[in-house]
Amino acid sequence: MAATLPSTSVLDLALAAKAAARKLATVPSATKDAALHAIADALEARIPEILEANARDLEAGRENGLSDALMDRLALTDARVRSIAAGARAIAALPDPVGEVVDGGRLANGLEVRKVRVPLGVVAVVYEARPNVTIDAAALALKSGNAVLLRGSSSAAHSNAVLARIAAEAASELPAGSIGLVGGDREALTELAQLEGIVDLIIPRGGEGLKKAISAVAKVPVIYAAAGNCHVYVDASADLAAAERIIVNAKVQRPGTCNSAETLLVHSDVADRFLPGAIAALRAEGVELRGDERVRTVDPSVNAAVESDWGEEFLALILAVKVVDSVEEAIDHVNEYGSGHSEAIVTNDRSAARAFQLGIDSACIYVNASTRFTDGGEFGMGAEIGNSTQKLHARGPIGLRELCSTRYLVEGDGQVRA
Amino acid sequence: MAATLPSTSVLDLALAAKAAARKLATVPSATKDAALHAIADALEARIPEILEANARDLEAGRENGLSDALMDRLALTDARVRSIAAGARAIAALPDPVGEVVDGGRLANGLEVRKVRVPLGVVAVVYEARPNVTIDAAALALKSGNAVLLRGSSSAAHSNAVLARIAAEAASELPAGSIGLVGGDREALTELAQLEGIVDLIIPRGGEGLKKAISAVAKVPVIYAAAGNCHVYVDASADLAAAERIIVNAKVQRPGTCNSAETLLVHSDVADRFLPGAIAALRAEGVELRGDERVRTVDPSVNAAVESDWGEEFLALILAVKVVDSVEEAIDHVNEYGSGHSEAIVTNDRSAARAFQLGIDSACIYVNASTRFTDGGEFGMGAEIGNSTQKLHARGPIGLRELCSTRYLVEGDGQVRA
Repeated sequence: MAATLPSTSVLDLALAAKAAARKLATVPSATKDAALHAIADALEARIPEILEANARDLEAGRENGLSDALMDRLALTDARVRSIAAGARAIAALPDPVGEVVDGGRLANGLEVRKVRVPLGVVAVVYEARPNVTIDAAALALKSGNAVLLRGSSSAAHSNAVLARIAAEAASELPAGSIGLVGGDREALTELAQLEGIVDLIIPRGGEGLKKAISAVAKVPVIYAAAGNCHVYVDASADLAAAERIIVNAKVQRPGTCNSAETLLVHSDVADRFLPGAIAALRAEGVELRGDERVRTVDPSVNAAVESDWGEEFLALILAVKVVDSVEEAIDHVNEYGSGHSEAIVTNDRSAARAFQLGIDSACIYVNASTRFTDGGEFGMGAEIGNSTQKLHARGPIGLRELCSTRYLVEGDGQVRA
Repeated sequence: MAATLPSTSVLDLALAAKAAARKLATVPSATKDAALHAIADALEARIPEILEANARDLEAGRENGLSDALMDRLALTDARVRSIAAGARAIAALPDPVGEVVDGGRLANGLEVRKVRVPLGVVAVVYEARPNVTIDAAALALKSGNAVLLRGSSSAAHSNAVLARIAAEAASELPAGSIGLVGGDREALTELAQLEGIVDLIIPRGGEGLKKAISAVAKVPVIYAAAGNCHVYVDASADLAAAERIIVNAKVQRPGTCNSAETLLVHSDVADRFLPGAIAALRAEGVELRGDERVRTVDPSVNAAVESDWGEEFLALILAVKVVDSVEEAIDHVNEYGSGHSEAIVTNDRSAARAFQLGIDSACIYVNASTRFTDGGEFGMGAEIGNSTQKLHARGPIGLRELCSTRYLVEGDGQVRA
């Protein structure tokens, strides 16, 4: 069985993962893919067991007065388990990032250099209510040749434990220790985040509270599956019908996600023509608007925005709206208030599009498309573990390649340095 | 003039650098290259001024009893300044990493996605005695579109100040604030390492003391220009003459560098035939040997190694030597004691070579070549700012590309997510 389960100490789990990682790095793709299929099959075969454990979490959630939204995120159903299994099979179908030659050539002295992708080693994923992350994260980590340490929230403890146990038992062809479920209290999380030299990366996937808790104590490298304060800017030359479709999609299609728009910027030349229809369309979808003075001149019924609205990730049907006089003003606003995630310009002006793409320091910059496309699946990378807004190592969707490092392999016939 | 000089506070310097970085990100290659040539020309034109400042540092160094080695690293000469200028011109001649498309394609919905290289923003480099790093680091940062904050050691304060001033004056076509020289005490360094959201990366280039000082306080991302405990393993099937050339080169060609060998591992099948000649050749170059019992059985005049010798980066003419019974034992030794920098196997056995390259978790793994080749220049990347042994973002030589991030640019014609 490939897992060590929560009764074990954090250090022991991590050491077992480290030992497993050494072996996993050289496990052939076919073996890893077979393990992911075995996990998917086992999940489907053991649905009653999973739903029983989930029912215990749901009951505790009701007793603890969890919100409807959190209860929904926590709940598993037959269909949701099948969807989790399908996700694992989809990850098995992706190309193996390990061994990919990303650069290389022959040097003047005859040395052959290849820069190849290798696993990071031990990847820890810390996540909140949704139990599906247990399998998603494990599948992504294993496919990329990493051992994984999973740390879910206590509210999903029974669900996570049964999912991890099923995965570990099904992945029996992988080295023991490949999947570890970290239990315990906040101190266990601190210990996990400080295992320098054992844990190679920790990915917190959750809200700002989790991010702050980890960043205060972490000694191992961290990539945050980040929040997003995303912007849509409607330029003077925009196709206004397309602009309306884009802002409505970016705001309402799934408002709780990090790639949803939180602020609409509109060029003053088109504010009078664009805003009334856009406001009506957004309100028809239940969006509350918070505008600056110039927006409220166009439509006085819009609530007044306060300074904090520009920096806020609402994650809800609320949109801040501001009129600007130029693409430069839009760029400056985004660079000042944005979180570096995803921004869109709607324009038919080539130089405005170019200025926006060059001038904004964000992970993903769209011309005439919704910010909602920032997603590993949409980008053709397959599943992802979140989106990164940091600049080092991984920026944008964190997929299989981002869970890897590289190594230089150099072959010679006796070369020494002169 | 492109610099703000040390009288300014760390925060003000960093904010000026941040503002400069926004502009530098879109400065054309030709402008950056012209600035590097102007810096090189100005350095050569102002050699007397540079040597005068350097003489003051040397005088203070003599008064403070600096070692001969440190005095040599501190000293500038006409030839050394010309070599620094030549280095800046060589960096100008490298391809611009900014704007390079590293991945891309058209999605099923018609969106065109490009993943392009962009500057990190503000890069801080913290370095010890050698004043040439002032120009090397500035040139690498500017070429890759980054503003640079330079923090040298107090022992080279006059030299660094005049070099930074000359560079900043010569680079007058670049945005003000592009080159900042950070002065002050240890607290100023702490402040620099904590400017989250302003400084995008800090690179300490120096010994273990500097590394510990930075890692204890840093809140901004750090890449260490790392130490190296490198190994050469002579396999049973090795060409023993090549093996002797390689270990002598890896140990003695420049023993103070991070890619020099510190431990020699020898397969027991060839220990009797290989060691006597290798020991003689190494001793002829002044190398002190510290062997395990089996080495001392072959040559009792070799000093006995102690446990700490296996983990030590000697950076001197000292070599630990051990006899092993298999490539697996060599791999385990390297993974246990190594620092993940550079390792070499000398062998004619394909499966031993493959096992060594797959099984060792280091940045660079050589077959039949010296570890001394781990170097940006040798790898055809041009100049480097050091070598990284960490797994995230940059592993191996830190050159122009490693001073960059990426950004996704996505172009559509009104796409929204279904």
